[in-house]
Amino acid sequence: MATLRELSDFITAEFPQTRVRILEVGSRSATVAHEVGPGELRPGGTVSGPVLMATADVALYVALLGEIGLVPLAVTTSLSFNFMRKPSADRRIIGVCTLLKVGRSLAVGEVSLYSEGLPEPVAHAVGTYAIPPGAHGGSRP
Amino acid sequence: MATLRELSDFITAEFPQTRVRILEVGSRSATVAHEVGPGELRPGGTVSGPVLMATADVALYVALLGEIGLVPLAVTTSLSFNFMRKPSADRRIIGVCTLLKVGRSLAVGEVSLYSEGLPEPVAHAVGTYAIPPGAHGGSRP
Amino acid sequence: MATLRELSDFITAEFPQTRVRILEVGSRSATVAHEVGPGELRPGGTVSGPVLMATADVALYVALLGEIGLVPLAVTTSLSFNFMRKPSADRRIIGVCTLLKVGRSLAVGEVSLYSEGLPEPVAHAVGTYAIPPGAHGGSRP
Amino acid sequence: MATLRELSDFITAEFPQTRVRILEVGSRSATVAHEVGPGELRPGGTVSGPVLMATADVALYVALLGEIGLVPLAVTTSLSFNFMRKPSADRRIIGVCTLLKVGRSLAVGEVSLYSEGLPEPVAHAVGTYAIPPGAHGGSRP
Repeated sequence: MATLRELSDFITAEFPQTRVRILEVGSRSATVAHEVGPGELRPGGTVSGPVLMATADVALYVALLGEIGLVPLAVTTSLSFNFMRKPSADRRIIGVCTLLKVGRSLAVGEVSLYSEGLPEPVAHAVGTYAIPPGAHGGSRP
Repeated sequence: MATLRELSDFITAEFPQTRVRILEVGSRSATVAHEVGPGELRPGGTVSGPVLMATADVALYVALLGEIGLVPLAVTTSLSFNFMRKPSADRRIIGVCTLLKVGRSLAVGEVSLYSEGLPEPVAHAVGTYAIPPGAHGGSRP
Repeated sequence: MATLRELSDFITAEFPQTRVRILEVGSRSATVAHEVGPGELRPGGTVSGPVLMATADVALYVALLGEIGLVPLAVTTSLSFNFMRKPSADRRIIGVCTLLKVGRSLAVGEVSLYSEGLPEPVAHAVGTYAIPPGAHGGSRP
Repeated sequence: MATLRELSDFITAEFPQTRVRILEVGSRSATVAHEVGPGELRPGGTVSGPVLMATADVALYVALLGEIGLVPLAVTTSLSFNFMRKPSADRRIIGVCTLLKVGRSLAVGEVSLYSEGLPEPVAHAVGTYAIPPGAHGGSRP
């Protein structure tokens, strides 16, 4: 219900510090990318955990907003992560989100996180969002 | 097994970007604080989710290292969050970790996250760490 | 808001198959016990995973109902488990629940699961419940 | 590495009480079904939570054993559930598991749970298993 451009502007306004960019928004899905530079790395050459977590958080939020419209009051109620492989230090983190449910008051989605270009996910997340009453239908801020 | 000073130096080296500071390390427990400034806030006056997640991650890591020694290869395998209340924009985030299990190869802990000085937790986390073989006994890096 | 007797009758009606019994209901807390017999064991002499999960589910539900009254429409929306130690085959499973939040529409609680009489928890759970609108104040079925 | 017949015999031996049956085992995947009768229902006509949890647990275990062989010592270390829709009272519960990682010591998988024949999942689970050292290669009990 919201275009990629509208969503990008919204994310920039809501998360002014984020280095996550939206690549694609589809039907109950979204793909985002987190830049990886010195500020995202840990010694030994890997991406820090909070970078992965921030990527999943935005991917879920974007997929949900793409479905219900730009609802600034939708809030994350839970996020669960499994960290499976060491991310590459020189590739962006890609988050691919699929929504499993968009109910009246609760949405659930999963996110696979990749080092860009590599086939096996580095982490997997599941998150839930609380949707404020009356938000559906795409009320704009 | 490691002192607060040793742990602080270790965290600074391992997580050069972190704004988390260690306040206390006890028996199977740790308390940490994350500074909150403009870079940690979201519009509307609340602390961003990744700040809470980073605080929990470090709290768990510090509690574990306080128990098994400075093992740089211990890695987070899972982290689960429930976000319960809106954090205050003008208070530090405090993470209080209690370890539930420190096994040979796996450790489990929980973290309550607070806006400093307020009684009700803003979020709760549970995390697991994989401990590399032979790490117990406090091998130093 | 509901007595132990009322809660026990309610649980028996709502979960006719359950072998969980309520031991105590307090302020935002509850303690329950699951009988362990041949039907709860796995070869090798341990309690099956679903027994632990059922115990946590009821402990959370009882703690919540003890707080908001006998609301049959409160539904579990998430449950997360960490399994930490092998339960004893000849002791009941005890679930000790503490509620972390009881909001208007969402409640969060944690449960420590024990083999009765042993100090270290065998598992730990965190669960969330959705509370139907208007349920607070203890509407009775 | 293990056939459906071998896996079925193994599950029957390891989980003598289970009403879960294996429908299919594939590459890093498995599909199982849990019978639903009076013993699995709650008042109001829905399937009880522990039935969903038991189905996910077996689905993950079967998918893992199908990959690494019949290793009785592989143990569940975590299981996380999101409950999304009310299951139908007159349909079996189907669990479809996909493994996300099979490492040397840790495996991660996700399970979508359905009321048989209905397109939308009733619940979603993510689980982790600890694999004992030397288990790979299909050591038989």
